[in-house]
Amino acid sequence: MRDFSRDHEWLSINTATIRKQQGAEVPLDRLIDQCAAQGIRAISPWRDQVAAVGLDRIAQQLRALDIGLSGYCRGGFFPAPDAAGLKAALEDNRRAIDEAKTLNAPCLVLVVGALPGALDGKVHYKDIARARSEVRDGIAASLDHAREVGMPLAIEPLHPMQAADRACVNTLEQALDLCDELDPQRTGMLGVALDIYHVWWDPKLQQQIARAGRQRLLAYHVCDWLTPTRDLLNDRGMMGDGVVELRKIRGWVEQAGFAGYSEVEIFSALDWWQRPGAETLATCIERHRSVV
Amino acid sequence: MRDFSRDHEWLSINTATIRKQQGAEVPLDRLIDQCAAQGIRAISPWRDQVAAVGLDRIAQQLRALDIGLSGYCRGGFFPAPDAAGLKAALEDNRRAIDEAKTLNAPCLVLVVGALPGALDGKVHYKDIARARSEVRDGIAASLDHAREVGMPLAIEPLHPMQAADRACVNTLEQALDLCDELDPQRTGMLGVALDIYHVWWDPKLQQQIARAGRQRLLAYHVCDWLTPTRDLLNDRGMMGDGVVELRKIRGWVEQAGFAGYSEVEIFSALDWWQRPGAETLATCIERHRSVV
Repeated sequence: MRDFSRDHEWLSINTATIRKQQGAEVPLDRLIDQCAAQGIRAISPWRDQVAAVGLDRIAQQLRALDIGLSGYCRGGFFPAPDAAGLKAALEDNRRAIDEAKTLNAPCLVLVVGALPGALDGKVHYKDIARARSEVRDGIAASLDHAREVGMPLAIEPLHPMQAADRACVNTLEQALDLCDELDPQRTGMLGVALDIYHVWWDPKLQQQIARAGRQRLLAYHVCDWLTPTRDLLNDRGMMGDGVVELRKIRGWVEQAGFAGYSEVEIFSALDWWQRPGAETLATCIERHRSVV
Repeated sequence: MRDFSRDHEWLSINTATIRKQQGAEVPLDRLIDQCAAQGIRAISPWRDQVAAVGLDRIAQQLRALDIGLSGYCRGGFFPAPDAAGLKAALEDNRRAIDEAKTLNAPCLVLVVGALPGALDGKVHYKDIARARSEVRDGIAASLDHAREVGMPLAIEPLHPMQAADRACVNTLEQALDLCDELDPQRTGMLGVALDIYHVWWDPKLQQQIARAGRQRLLAYHVCDWLTPTRDLLNDRGMMGDGVVELRKIRGWVEQAGFAGYSEVEIFSALDWWQRPGAETLATCIERHRSVV
């Protein structure tokens, strides 16, 4: 197992972690400068943040600062109430793949989507098996373009508490079943983004990480599960402040062959998004060394 | 599949659903009278509610009104930081089994517990595998007494969002693995309480319900998953107000041999606990007939 205690070479910052600082949204180019100032050598940015500044400008800035990506957030949201919606989702994923390529990302993270309309509180249908089938078809179709341009797709199993509105792929086992169905040759073009927040509770986690292996483990995200958790989306904890056995799980992941970044992704409306970004980044670095 | 549209013969009310009315706690004897007034023939009461009125008095009232139980809430909470805590939990479960017997319950529902101290925001340890091992040992020990008095134990898999603080058994598959380990003969003395709120998202749900079969399906709880869900514990929805495919899941459960009550269990601090109990009960009856 790699020793993280002496530096933060393998720390990546998902830019959602610092997108709000002292309650206010901060543009991505400024976030990247803040990361560079603390010697952080990888980030995972979000599409809307990139679009707000401009894709080429961000690509240029990253090159100039020698900052790489640990992933690109995000494609997915495949299910839709009708054929036009399904088609629009595929087109959007095609664009996401191309953007990821421009930014030289190692993978495009897929939050696959769930019951259409659920995010707005009004579902178009309740048939979760249908949503899962639309997800499978959407990934299969997107995989063709991903293979052409050489951009691996990383399915992110989301916590079951987000099964209705954000992703109907909810366990690592389910994600890997999908990978085996759509990429039986384990080409490296389809795998998973494993976020400990979503999977830490799973009694089959160790077993399924071993099953995933190096070819399927495309990204690894860390944060922590707080007790109590006050919100289903935006109350994630800083590593070490919750109950997740971070080092144990990283051990399993590395045992399976993963040797990439530990990407910090913390949505925290009540705590970290209220603080200065420099403080949040410094804490990420310290916790990366001491508890991740 | 049974036709529920013409009466509410197979409706049971978990008394948590109406324990607060217009914001105020209502004693169990009053709740039972309210259920009787609407022709409800089964309930599932909680230990603290029973204790507040008196076990014998409640047993007598239920007999007088010819109201049965669909379960007794609840045993469990086995993990503890030390040997004294583990022993105290076993003694408490022994008492819960005896109370369930006095009330002539068909099963004692087990919310098995998780990381000790998590409910108070300060865990004694983070090793969830240890908690799971203490749960297994606790159920094994309690099963001896349960067999002696003839009181089946029903493990309730809880939603993964409650894995840290309430129950580290989080999928039906995991609960059934435990049943198979501790009761390989399928004696009927160990099974599951299947609450759709906790399991509706599970991609293996249909398969595992079929695996459970009649001997393991000891209780069936209904409510609904709201979008958005505003609280991890107390924002459950009335049947029909959320995204769960209630009738489809009941079909699977009945196909597996279950022929008991649909027990309504709704924790709803913001909505139903603010209404008059008679309104909540009338709505349960209407939805039981129309959507369960």
